[in-house]
Amino acid sequence: MRTPFILPKDKAEALTSSLAFDKAELLPAIAREAQSGTLLMQAWMNRDAVLHTLQTGQAWYYSRSRNASWRKGESSGHTQTVTAFATDCDFDTILLDVIQQGPACHTNRPHCFFHLATGEGEWLVTEVPCD
Amino acid sequence: MRTPFILPKDKAEALTSSLAFDKAELLPAIAREAQSGTLLMQAWMNRDAVLHTLQTGQAWYYSRSRNASWRKGESSGHTQTVTAFATDCDFDTILLDVIQQGPACHTNRPHCFFHLATGEGEWLVTEVPCD
Repeated sequence: MRTPFILPKDKAEALTSSLAFDKAELLPAIAREAQSGTLLMQAWMNRDAVLHTLQTGQAWYYSRSRNASWRKGESSGHTQTVTAFATDCDFDTILLDVIQQGPACHTNRPHCFFHLATGEGEWLVTEVPCD
Repeated sequence: MRTPFILPKDKAEALTSSLAFDKAELLPAIAREAQSGTLLMQAWMNRDAVLHTLQTGQAWYYSRSRNASWRKGESSGHTQTVTAFATDCDFDTILLDVIQQGPACHTNRPHCFFHLATGEGEWLVTEVPCD
């Protein structure tokens, strides 16, 4: 397996054609830290984001609020180099193994899943922002 | 933390009210094996599925094809006992830590993410079905 995982255009298009995009032409995409297996974040991909990701080895996602694909870290510098690209049984969820540069979350936390439900029915914040 | 993680109705409703459901009134939900951290599957939850999950300590999801919520394992027996319930920075993705009974995938594989992209532009199947 190469680091980063990069495909030429024809092979990237072949893989993309087998994905089962939803009615909005999107798929959920999960990013996992390649070495530790830590779950980092969940975002969305459209066809362009999948193709860009496969052809550049950098994670691209689709912003539903901005209606545009974006390269993770393009403004923050917190890029994701993709080392493996997988999909699930139904070809309708993407799983990326990535080398994360800096914190994955836009709140500056290492990962996004820091709201933990407590027995009191409240959300406990389990991560602090990085310096 | 209790095993399973169960809340009374009022506390379950309080947590559910803070979630940012999408236009289809759904959220992506990721299940992770509580002990090993293995990523098992991604599915969908509506409000009812979230409330049932929080009040029973068993994972419930929403089927977009059947337009109904369902308890994971209700037909297969491959249930998920929820030990922790988390959400992300934007309150729009659920992460469950679960004790998985049997294989998590409907293909009888331990997890769903068994299609790995290769340098040849093909999908390598990385898991075999359980006996």
